[in-house]
Amino acid sequence: MNSRQIFEQIRQKQSFLCIGLDSDINKIPQHLLNHKNSLFEFNRQIIDAAAKYCVSCKPNIAFYEACGEDGLRQLAMTVEYLKINYPEIFLIADAKRGDTGNTSQMYARAFFETMPFDALTLSPYMGEDTAKPFFSFADKWIVLLALTSNESAKDFQLIKTENGRMIYEEVIERSKNWGNADNTMYVVGATKAEMLASVRKIIPQHFLLIPGVGAQGGSLADVAEYGMNDICGLLVNSSRAIIFAGNDKNFATAAAAAAKALQREMAKLLAEKRII
Amino acid sequence: MNSRQIFEQIRQKQSFLCIGLDSDINKIPQHLLNHKNSLFEFNRQIIDAAAKYCVSCKPNIAFYEACGEDGLRQLAMTVEYLKINYPEIFLIADAKRGDTGNTSQMYARAFFETMPFDALTLSPYMGEDTAKPFFSFADKWIVLLALTSNESAKDFQLIKTENGRMIYEEVIERSKNWGNADNTMYVVGATKAEMLASVRKIIPQHFLLIPGVGAQGGSLADVAEYGMNDICGLLVNSSRAIIFAGNDKNFATAAAAAAKALQREMAKLLAEKRII
Repeated sequence: MNSRQIFEQIRQKQSFLCIGLDSDINKIPQHLLNHKNSLFEFNRQIIDAAAKYCVSCKPNIAFYEACGEDGLRQLAMTVEYLKINYPEIFLIADAKRGDTGNTSQMYARAFFETMPFDALTLSPYMGEDTAKPFFSFADKWIVLLALTSNESAKDFQLIKTENGRMIYEEVIERSKNWGNADNTMYVVGATKAEMLASVRKIIPQHFLLIPGVGAQGGSLADVAEYGMNDICGLLVNSSRAIIFAGNDKNFATAAAAAAKALQREMAKLLAEKRII
Repeated sequence: MNSRQIFEQIRQKQSFLCIGLDSDINKIPQHLLNHKNSLFEFNRQIIDAAAKYCVSCKPNIAFYEACGEDGLRQLAMTVEYLKINYPEIFLIADAKRGDTGNTSQMYARAFFETMPFDALTLSPYMGEDTAKPFFSFADKWIVLLALTSNESAKDFQLIKTENGRMIYEEVIERSKNWGNADNTMYVVGATKAEMLASVRKIIPQHFLLIPGVGAQGGSLADVAEYGMNDICGLLVNSSRAIIFAGNDKNFATAAAAAAKALQREMAKLLAEKRII
């Protein structure tokens, strides 16, 4: 999928929502625990109910790894289910990997071949070596961490360099030409929406993956104000607020309602900005 | 295991060697490929032959993830085999994770509970949130990336901040009190041995995990010169130079010989510095 194709989905669904499948085995509804594939079953029901409101899904790999090989098996089932039934949905592995070229090659194989994800989140700390091996896979993407939405993001990302830039700006500036706007996205947290304006000065065309709307306090209107470009250029992620909206037999309906509420707000913003 | 116990192993084995189990399915000897558990069998034979020369083993998780759930199963077998047969060996998961507190909690469960690793490598980019959840596990360690040994380490780690420090120094300075010298190590590449002196000024007591000796050009003597403290304070990793020393039926003997050669050199350095 390239950026135009992602935009086409955004237009069709009038949504730039990414649903984060942070499927915590300790938080899914009780009645699913007797199921042989409880994590997959949880995901499947949510996907079937909410797919029409989102253009992207982002399983958080930690929640599957915590369940050992059985968790990984159910992650693979989830990815396969999505690819077969909802091939239009852009699939991001939220794994925050980041290693030397030799090792990145292995991660590329794990996330682009063994499992057919479209994109993988990466930490930039080890530099360009980290990213390079992924670019040899056609139509696959990396999503580089720039400015994250957690509290301690400030510990290093907001350090000022001798050039007067902040580290997250330096990361974007130095990495923007490793790949291009059709294989590289950036994570920019919604909790600092005004910083999106500075990000857009450096990379007007790239897609941004935005966490932190809702639970972590970011505003969707601010994100659209400072971050939207002419092909939308945004995927806004919501995880817990959607997948744990309900906690009984009707959890999937509750999740769909939460996703729909965000989609409605997004449709309004896309119309206001005259993008759809 | 605490730092004194690691030092006790270093004294007993006269070695501060960590063997990196970067067990690439495309590089292991041909005759093992018919084996049901070829990655595990490769690891087991190397461990049995070389365990007496090392104090630590470090599976690189990417190489197992690249083989899907079957790879993860064999990783778990390897870790269990090591824990049962060589409980004195300090087991590091080289996974370079790094995420928010909520997600780190899941990784802690995956690597400290589901699999009984002693330590996990972490990227510092997202700040203190990344590390905190791991400290509630007694006798477990995080190994924070500071200065890595790959070529593009310079892209961000050597950026100068407005304080005149480099980012890798800033990472060590700001994180050194998140935990303590009994639950936190740092990755400092051997390819820049003189920088070890600046690292030792900030953290005289912490253990350092040193990649990049051998294949990547670092010198063991330089590492000892600039990095050793009174409890040695070093784990020097070698991966490919040991595990792929041979490529036929005698691969384990070849690996043991390569490990022994490094151990001999380490014994000499430990004696010269009057540490053993």
